[in-house]
Amino acid sequence: MSGYFITFEGGEGAGKTSILHSIADKLQQLGYDVVQTREPGGIDIAEKIRNIILNPLHTAMDGRTEALLYAAARRQHLVEKVFPALEQGKIVLCDRFIDSSLAYQGYARGLGMDEVFTINQFAIQNAMPNLTLFFDIEPRKGLERISLNKDRERNRLDLEEIEFHEKVYEAYQLLVKRFPERIQVINADQSMEKVEGDSLSVITQYLNTME
Amino acid sequence: MSGYFITFEGGEGAGKTSILHSIADKLQQLGYDVVQTREPGGIDIAEKIRNIILNPLHTAMDGRTEALLYAAARRQHLVEKVFPALEQGKIVLCDRFIDSSLAYQGYARGLGMDEVFTINQFAIQNAMPNLTLFFDIEPRKGLERISLNKDRERNRLDLEEIEFHEKVYEAYQLLVKRFPERIQVINADQSMEKVEGDSLSVITQYLNTME
Repeated sequence: MSGYFITFEGGEGAGKTSILHSIADKLQQLGYDVVQTREPGGIDIAEKIRNIILNPLHTAMDGRTEALLYAAARRQHLVEKVFPALEQGKIVLCDRFIDSSLAYQGYARGLGMDEVFTINQFAIQNAMPNLTLFFDIEPRKGLERISLNKDRERNRLDLEEIEFHEKVYEAYQLLVKRFPERIQVINADQSMEKVEGDSLSVITQYLNTME
Repeated sequence: MSGYFITFEGGEGAGKTSILHSIADKLQQLGYDVVQTREPGGIDIAEKIRNIILNPLHTAMDGRTEALLYAAARRQHLVEKVFPALEQGKIVLCDRFIDSSLAYQGYARGLGMDEVFTINQFAIQNAMPNLTLFFDIEPRKGLERISLNKDRERNRLDLEEIEFHEKVYEAYQLLVKRFPERIQVINADQSMEKVEGDSLSVITQYLNTME
């Protein structure tokens, strides 16, 4: 596949979603062909799987069932949206990917990072991201940002205890150590302009090296 | 867990489903506390997952997505129905389980038995069946039986090419070699009475050894 697969990762309130949009615009201005996506990415089968995961009536949902469903939705999103774009040589920017499963379910929920990695390997085969940006901000500060933004819809994860978010943060630190080549740390505890500038510089540097 | 988990496996038309019902009756007459089940086992979340798998509109469904969804449904059925029954010391008779995924998806669909085993291990943890009956009949004969039974509803798998069913049969032979302790072969190319008698004898012998 001739394109590049770049993922954006981090805890709640790290700003990655808005940065992703502006980076996509900037890259397009620089002449790159960019696809912005996030799981389940508007893929019908993946959306239906996600509806099962998020249905508030499904209180009996087991953690392993949930992890398998996320992996299934991830697979379908890859096959229908990410792989075709990469084959066409596009740059795919994806808001959250395998590292989120490793951090949230593998580590913070306690299913085991290696075990969650194994089922995700089955899902993605060798399609690990070429580059991952980890938006690094202390959980408390990230959550404060969210609480200041009255327009933001609260999701189930925003409402978890602070301890849960601390664990997610710990997990990302472990992932940065485990995949030092792939994961680049962006200091997200700066102004949005600065975070955006740092992100763009890491990405363009990567793309220049590859060309 | 103090109960016993016994699974019934085989190709189409091997007669395992009707044998399972009559064996359950016989075991109950012998005083055993028996639960009959099959995936998705009437579990709400598992039924919904199965609906996604079987929806005829989902022609874009990838084989790996499907395998992950089956593993997710299997997990939920275990957690909500099989584990509680085993904890209560019951004998659980289950129509198809992990070996079906290994044979149909791992081998016949070509995803790889070991790979499909790995994601299923995540789903079942160490809950491999205590005993598995493989109903052994040549695929052609099994399919002939089905074609003679006008009342039987045809499912998607009944309509596959004979080559597919030959592969499933091959896969079961491999599984019998791989799990010689767990999987007992029942000659299913006999009268139903004889198959039933052989099955009951294998099961009661197993239960007597365990007591």
